[in-house]
Amino acid sequence: MKRIAVLTSGGDAPGMNAAVRAVVRKGLYEGMEVYGINYGYAGLVAGDIRKMHRRDVGDLISRGGTFLYSARYPEFATEEGQLKGIEQLKKFGIEGLVVIGGDGSYRGALALTKHGYPTIGLPGTIDNDIAGTDFCIGFDTAINTVLDSLDKIRDTATSHVRTFIVEVMGRNAGDIALWAGVAGGAEQIIIPEKEFDMSEVAEEIRKGRERGKKHTIIVLAEGVMKGNEFADKLYEYGDFHQRVTVLGHVQRGGSPTARDRVLASKFGATAVDMLKDEKGGLCLGLVNNQIVANDIIETLGKKKHMPDVSLYQLNKEISY
Amino acid sequence: MKRIAVLTSGGDAPGMNAAVRAVVRKGLYEGMEVYGINYGYAGLVAGDIRKMHRRDVGDLISRGGTFLYSARYPEFATEEGQLKGIEQLKKFGIEGLVVIGGDGSYRGALALTKHGYPTIGLPGTIDNDIAGTDFCIGFDTAINTVLDSLDKIRDTATSHVRTFIVEVMGRNAGDIALWAGVAGGAEQIIIPEKEFDMSEVAEEIRKGRERGKKHTIIVLAEGVMKGNEFADKLYEYGDFHQRVTVLGHVQRGGSPTARDRVLASKFGATAVDMLKDEKGGLCLGLVNNQIVANDIIETLGKKKHMPDVSLYQLNKEISY
Amino acid sequence: MKRIAVLTSGGDAPGMNAAVRAVVRKGLYEGMEVYGINYGYAGLVAGDIRKMHRRDVGDLISRGGTFLYSARYPEFATEEGQLKGIEQLKKFGIEGLVVIGGDGSYRGALALTKHGYPTIGLPGTIDNDIAGTDFCIGFDTAINTVLDSLDKIRDTATSHVRTFIVEVMGRNAGDIALWAGVAGGAEQIIIPEKEFDMSEVAEEIRKGRERGKKHTIIVLAEGVMKGNEFADKLYEYGDFHQRVTVLGHVQRGGSPTARDRVLASKFGATAVDMLKDEKGGLCLGLVNNQIVANDIIETLGKKKHMPDVSLYQLNKEISY
Amino acid sequence: MKRIAVLTSGGDAPGMNAAVRAVVRKGLYEGMEVYGINYGYAGLVAGDIRKMHRRDVGDLISRGGTFLYSARYPEFATEEGQLKGIEQLKKFGIEGLVVIGGDGSYRGALALTKHGYPTIGLPGTIDNDIAGTDFCIGFDTAINTVLDSLDKIRDTATSHVRTFIVEVMGRNAGDIALWAGVAGGAEQIIIPEKEFDMSEVAEEIRKGRERGKKHTIIVLAEGVMKGNEFADKLYEYGDFHQRVTVLGHVQRGGSPTARDRVLASKFGATAVDMLKDEKGGLCLGLVNNQIVANDIIETLGKKKHMPDVSLYQLNKEISY
Repeated sequence: MKRIAVLTSGGDAPGMNAAVRAVVRKGLYEGMEVYGINYGYAGLVAGDIRKMHRRDVGDLISRGGTFLYSARYPEFATEEGQLKGIEQLKKFGIEGLVVIGGDGSYRGALALTKHGYPTIGLPGTIDNDIAGTDFCIGFDTAINTVLDSLDKIRDTATSHVRTFIVEVMGRNAGDIALWAGVAGGAEQIIIPEKEFDMSEVAEEIRKGRERGKKHTIIVLAEGVMKGNEFADKLYEYGDFHQRVTVLGHVQRGGSPTARDRVLASKFGATAVDMLKDEKGGLCLGLVNNQIVANDIIETLGKKKHMPDVSLYQLNKEISY
Repeated sequence: MKRIAVLTSGGDAPGMNAAVRAVVRKGLYEGMEVYGINYGYAGLVAGDIRKMHRRDVGDLISRGGTFLYSARYPEFATEEGQLKGIEQLKKFGIEGLVVIGGDGSYRGALALTKHGYPTIGLPGTIDNDIAGTDFCIGFDTAINTVLDSLDKIRDTATSHVRTFIVEVMGRNAGDIALWAGVAGGAEQIIIPEKEFDMSEVAEEIRKGRERGKKHTIIVLAEGVMKGNEFADKLYEYGDFHQRVTVLGHVQRGGSPTARDRVLASKFGATAVDMLKDEKGGLCLGLVNNQIVANDIIETLGKKKHMPDVSLYQLNKEISY
Repeated sequence: MKRIAVLTSGGDAPGMNAAVRAVVRKGLYEGMEVYGINYGYAGLVAGDIRKMHRRDVGDLISRGGTFLYSARYPEFATEEGQLKGIEQLKKFGIEGLVVIGGDGSYRGALALTKHGYPTIGLPGTIDNDIAGTDFCIGFDTAINTVLDSLDKIRDTATSHVRTFIVEVMGRNAGDIALWAGVAGGAEQIIIPEKEFDMSEVAEEIRKGRERGKKHTIIVLAEGVMKGNEFADKLYEYGDFHQRVTVLGHVQRGGSPTARDRVLASKFGATAVDMLKDEKGGLCLGLVNNQIVANDIIETLGKKKHMPDVSLYQLNKEISY
Repeated sequence: MKRIAVLTSGGDAPGMNAAVRAVVRKGLYEGMEVYGINYGYAGLVAGDIRKMHRRDVGDLISRGGTFLYSARYPEFATEEGQLKGIEQLKKFGIEGLVVIGGDGSYRGALALTKHGYPTIGLPGTIDNDIAGTDFCIGFDTAINTVLDSLDKIRDTATSHVRTFIVEVMGRNAGDIALWAGVAGGAEQIIIPEKEFDMSEVAEEIRKGRERGKKHTIIVLAEGVMKGNEFADKLYEYGDFHQRVTVLGHVQRGGSPTARDRVLASKFGATAVDMLKDEKGGLCLGLVNNQIVANDIIETLGKKKHMPDVSLYQLNKEISY
């Protein structure tokens, strides 16, 4: 394979630039030509494609977001959309692709592979909710961003009898809440994977007060409910002087951590190795600290990613 | 004066610890005994007072919050409350005080001075809304905290056609919104000091879109309205895919910046110099980059602190 | 087991406080009494021991260093030293121990276990050079600290034709240099595990210049040689306007990252579980992303820890 | 004036990008055309000049370094160099300039003004050693970078009986050492403006030990001597287990702080206002918290900038 391309798709995540850089540099190192596609599959279909040189990815490794831009493009799920994309690939003579994103990106990668354009998927999302990998690009940065906020709240919390509710990202997955919660010493963690009872939440706060604890920090995954809604419901069980923090898209940004950059670099370089061997229809993952290549069909068929719920119990035993 | 004390009062602010450290160390340097009072005026009345040694304030300069704890204590506005406090001062032989906080703290400082216990007030609040000073302890840290969030939002904003609303602290003062907004390159800044028209806000967003701007960041002082409320109202003027970030108490925490630590150190040491000279009823400020001592009565009588509203116009001319 | 103790030994590392907190809280949760020993084995022998309560470890999870202090104490390698320590354990009725540190700490743990005091070792060092674990407490924080410096150098490097040499910790192990180097996009990484030839280093810089690269960043593990020495030797191969940065103990400090805190928390809680089961003579590790318990004798007998040298080759292929 | 240009000159500093952005945006806002000149006066002479649009400075406010690159170009001190530069200005129809840098940049600005091209100088250097201003662009960021390192050293220092020597930038000025030293609670600050006696330095360390202080942090301005040299000399007065940290160019990088960005934005916008009024030969400063315009001839004739040496005495009284 002599000519490959790379795109980022879906929600952006810190470390995507590091992955793109690795694809470009490793591709050039292997004697290939590498193209960058802007705006994900939308840009592929529109032909928003340019040749990348070594220096185009210089000074990018430290940047949050994705300089190739990202976009959701449901139209690529259709045969019509895919054929338009392939037309562009033909036009530029591109033989294989790396796509960085989530489940939707993987489906596109699979379709392109079936059409004869081997494509490798890399997991990139702060939510960490992609099957086939323990960690996604962006997750490590996101939990450290949330952690920084928890630490700051703790600074000020000490002198106030208050309950701080911190709403974090995670529509279907509690990974951010679990990791940041344990790392931040949050007294309670509310995640989609575990049922909760508001009366027990209130009871725990009360018991903490009796033990001399003045403040309580609750990390709440947005997939369970909104922070304000949670505060209102908790209020019905007692006046806890709640304060709500909603970090929102702050969690999506920031210069990637060392882990995210190293993981992204490994993923990017490995993907090029796969394409060099004409392999496609695979998505990479980090499983038990090893880079693995999974079949996309199998991966998409698998049950939803499960976070490390042992952290939930651990937190109950050490953060009280 | 041979025996002085220090307390922190009202909302806590990063740099309060640096100020307490300076009072303790400078007092000891001058041959005085220095006492720390926990929980502000409440602790004074309750006698929650202890002698401070050099090492008690070691490693504190970098810590957010206040290790003396802070508290609001409206009862200290009454003669009865004040007399109880004075009883404690007598008991410990304390002759003068330094109080770090806001307007309420200043009133207590004035009352104690009138009762024969010279007291110096230091301005400490992230809101920066205390009269008689250009900058309060904690403000510089808070604007950098908000700025960090704005930068992170910008990372991810680039690829989305969205309007990001960031609600920041400031019930009566737009200082945080103005400084962080200009520094973060926010397209719009909404503050209590300037009227705004939602239809113009929407119009500006629309114009930006036409110029090719995909995302808009709006920094909103909480004193104007809540972020969610703002988003709902803006929605009526067009579907802007708003995302709301509410930083809340995150803004109150964090290791103080160099400026806040130097300012707090100067304030603390100067306050001890004043007490050494038996001066009281004064509050310190930084005016035109010089430490000044203002009469508390005059300061409390002054009109509300005004932020540097020239930043509002500056932002209109460079952040579009 | 009803009464356990915890100490930190050797060089301190960010996350040691999080590990101590986990031991204390988990111990109390299991109905044990938990004692903290100051200054490592030296404090054990001296009886510098105190009972820990839930609140003694409050707000500690975010702090760098170790609040139990750490110390090197070669005397504990002797039977005499050990017996003195055991005397203290008897005095306080302590039945089992958790020690956090490196190889030396493990030897002490083994000795105590043999004397009938089951002891569990936890790997804590920023150098990451302890056998039996992929990651040590403190390593993740250290690489992010170095990374932050590399990013800052890159900011300013762009406009200068210069070679920046950054000396990082690692007397026998290149882990920090490898991870931070890859994450920071350093053009060259010099580690003890790989021979290097100064003329090739110079040649690479020259080739980079010819490709239009103005600056080169070299990450150098201190175990190879000192930064200044490296600069002097490189100078003999050409005038490269070197600038040397020596981070030194800066790398040992800082608030621990999310990873380090979660890892430390898991290690601490697991150690208590082991002691509950009367197990000793074990050291914990994270191997293939799983917490494992290794026999200390076997672990100490094993060959030196090897860093992930695949990163060395990866860097050559993407950072040029 | 309808067509202006902007360049950065000398050593780069965080906030230069924010200043360039303000010049560009404010110029466009005033209906001017704005040109960016790469590589300072060298680029001017070489004609490395391009028209700037609103979006060219998008997302730049948060970036360290200078995207226009900076360069030293002594040739511009000659009439010949200046005439070549003017030729380029004529070619592009540029009528006025903003230059961001230090003393050398001001001399060029003066020469251009005399030749009929009004030019405004903005002070940009982390050393803070430019006459006519209390604060230069980049200084606030640099002291916070140094402070971060001091805080990290303190974390680990607690358990070691050691003397930490931190060499910071400042060839002729002690500003960085003074501000970072006070903010970081360094026990000793060594600056060019104050003589020091190594035997007294050693004596202070000894006295600290006697008071129970285990570690000492010394901040040393590089202009006095190199860190290693200092350590060697100190060693002759006693074995203090010194550890040296040399931050080097790390201090030049980093995302600018809120202060630096606001200051740079004000300077940039004000410079455009001056050019609009056909004013030149001026350099801007922040004096007593007000933006002022100084005559360049007068400013260059003034005695060397003096740092706030009151901080030196303050530190002696509170950091012991």
